[in-house]
Amino acid sequence: MEPERIDQIGEWGLLARLRGFCAAELIGDDGALLPAAGDRDWAVTTDLLVDGVHFSDRTTPARSVGWRAVAANLSDLAAMGADPVAITVALALPGDTSVAWAVDLYEGMAACLGRYGGAIAGGDLCRSPVKTVSITALGRVSRDRALRRNAAQPGDAIVVTGIHGASRAGLAVLLEPERFATVPTALQNSWIEAHQYPRPRLDAIAAIAPLTAQRDRPWCAMDSSDGLADALWQISRESRVSMVIDRAALPMPPGLADHLGEDIALDWTLYGGEDFELVLALPPAIADALISQLGPTAARIGTVLERDNERRDRPITLTDSTGRHRDRPLSGKATFQHFAP
Amino acid sequence: MEPERIDQIGEWGLLARLRGFCAAELIGDDGALLPAAGDRDWAVTTDLLVDGVHFSDRTTPARSVGWRAVAANLSDLAAMGADPVAITVALALPGDTSVAWAVDLYEGMAACLGRYGGAIAGGDLCRSPVKTVSITALGRVSRDRALRRNAAQPGDAIVVTGIHGASRAGLAVLLEPERFATVPTALQNSWIEAHQYPRPRLDAIAAIAPLTAQRDRPWCAMDSSDGLADALWQISRESRVSMVIDRAALPMPPGLADHLGEDIALDWTLYGGEDFELVLALPPAIADALISQLGPTAARIGTVLERDNERRDRPITLTDSTGRHRDRPLSGKATFQHFAP
Repeated sequence: MEPERIDQIGEWGLLARLRGFCAAELIGDDGALLPAAGDRDWAVTTDLLVDGVHFSDRTTPARSVGWRAVAANLSDLAAMGADPVAITVALALPGDTSVAWAVDLYEGMAACLGRYGGAIAGGDLCRSPVKTVSITALGRVSRDRALRRNAAQPGDAIVVTGIHGASRAGLAVLLEPERFATVPTALQNSWIEAHQYPRPRLDAIAAIAPLTAQRDRPWCAMDSSDGLADALWQISRESRVSMVIDRAALPMPPGLADHLGEDIALDWTLYGGEDFELVLALPPAIADALISQLGPTAARIGTVLERDNERRDRPITLTDSTGRHRDRPLSGKATFQHFAP
Repeated sequence: MEPERIDQIGEWGLLARLRGFCAAELIGDDGALLPAAGDRDWAVTTDLLVDGVHFSDRTTPARSVGWRAVAANLSDLAAMGADPVAITVALALPGDTSVAWAVDLYEGMAACLGRYGGAIAGGDLCRSPVKTVSITALGRVSRDRALRRNAAQPGDAIVVTGIHGASRAGLAVLLEPERFATVPTALQNSWIEAHQYPRPRLDAIAAIAPLTAQRDRPWCAMDSSDGLADALWQISRESRVSMVIDRAALPMPPGLADHLGEDIALDWTLYGGEDFELVLALPPAIADALISQLGPTAARIGTVLERDNERRDRPITLTDSTGRHRDRPLSGKATFQHFAP
């Protein structure tokens, strides 16, 4: 009999087999929280980027690869409520890589750190047939400000920062420019910028910090790196809740539906991924205060409900406050999965 | 003109170009020390292992890959004087990898952590054409016990823990078994064990800890992952000192010189690498106390001298207390370098 292969069980199947080796109290969030002396814990998170999987010469110059690798990690720290302190960089490259590519990669990393905080604290460097960048980020978080994926409670307002789907649109512009011939250049460039230089939402963490004085329980957040729908699914699973989401409130990229149609715009907004925004579940008054601080790109998109045990496999209902579409369960199936079986 | 390639400037050339992007106070050691509240800092270190470069199906079953990946990181923590707390694991695998390989990898990691301390605090998982394992380890170190690569002082005794060259001998046994036909099986197996399941010397750190009450300055250590000669070179460079090393005192694998000749035994002891032992520079009385605690595999192999500015490119002299060989400078050239130009 052939041995079972990981592309037969998929990323989630493999994670299920490996989960038992991990410390249960440290996993299941965007990062792990390590207790420390004083009132501030450490948050640690890691991301691995592989040429041809997460980036390519067609879509991401080296500077963008470095920026995105750091931004992905800082976004995970933001989702924990943590401020960045340091990163380590493990880098594997083919011998024929140009020196300029490696230097540009580091310039991109340093530029992102320069804007959002944190220093490069060393790393490792080796040869590989495939360009691979692995970054681990360390941040500090006041214990009373940590955000957790399992902390959503019925009655919480679901808030998203920023636009979703723009990174996916930017990727499409880079891969299939002919499809976007009628889209104004400025709009195309804004989507490309969203894909190549995403902005981790540490500003949202700073905006939440003063509000936590009113907090009597942990609040919930996750980043949307694997897509908005994936974040909603993960939060509903880890918090054991249901949700109702208003599709009319979803923050779609301006102009996208006009040029590519409503179905594609909705699909990329929900499943596009790599926007590195935050999805939060907060008491309604806190949600309002946060949205008023963050401005028009933050939005309340739904509400957390008691878990409906009869609909545990369909925990999220997509409604439409404009009345144009019927209610339907939000599919989790289209969310990206490595080694999809 | 063709762009400059990294295999034209080599690992050290590339590191020199990238160093400026890193925080100067955090690099240049086996790990970075991050200040924390209280009297204990955090040490962080990262290692990347690539199939065909650091391991292969011929020499290292998956369990050994996992063990070695963790041991390499814990060895870096030991070299900082730190106790392991947690690791993150970033893993990239081809889709046709067997599930058993991934599970065995994690079993090897968990076994090493179970023996030496530390928990798996999550990570990342993705597809890649090449098996790649990137581990970042976090440890705690009392500020007055931290060991630094730049802390060797003239008059210090140079101590090594354990045997050097056994890992290289084990690799040779696995790759060229016919060359070792006359070597007793038990000896072959001990070398294979040294290669597949190296032991990070956290016991040496525990043995040093009570001695640090007598310390009025930082002491010096580095691990010998890139070879004993490399560790001596790095310490001499970072500490700006010269050294004299007695080849008769070097801890060679028993039996190796008998079976493969003295030249190969010396070469593998100095340049073999991956023994994951410690090289320390300590006040002589402390060195004696440590060696008496660690037992016969620890040895004083030399002495730190004032830097001889006329011999800055040959800072280490290899002598022979038995008088059989003339003094000669220790070459740093044969030490392994990725992207060797």
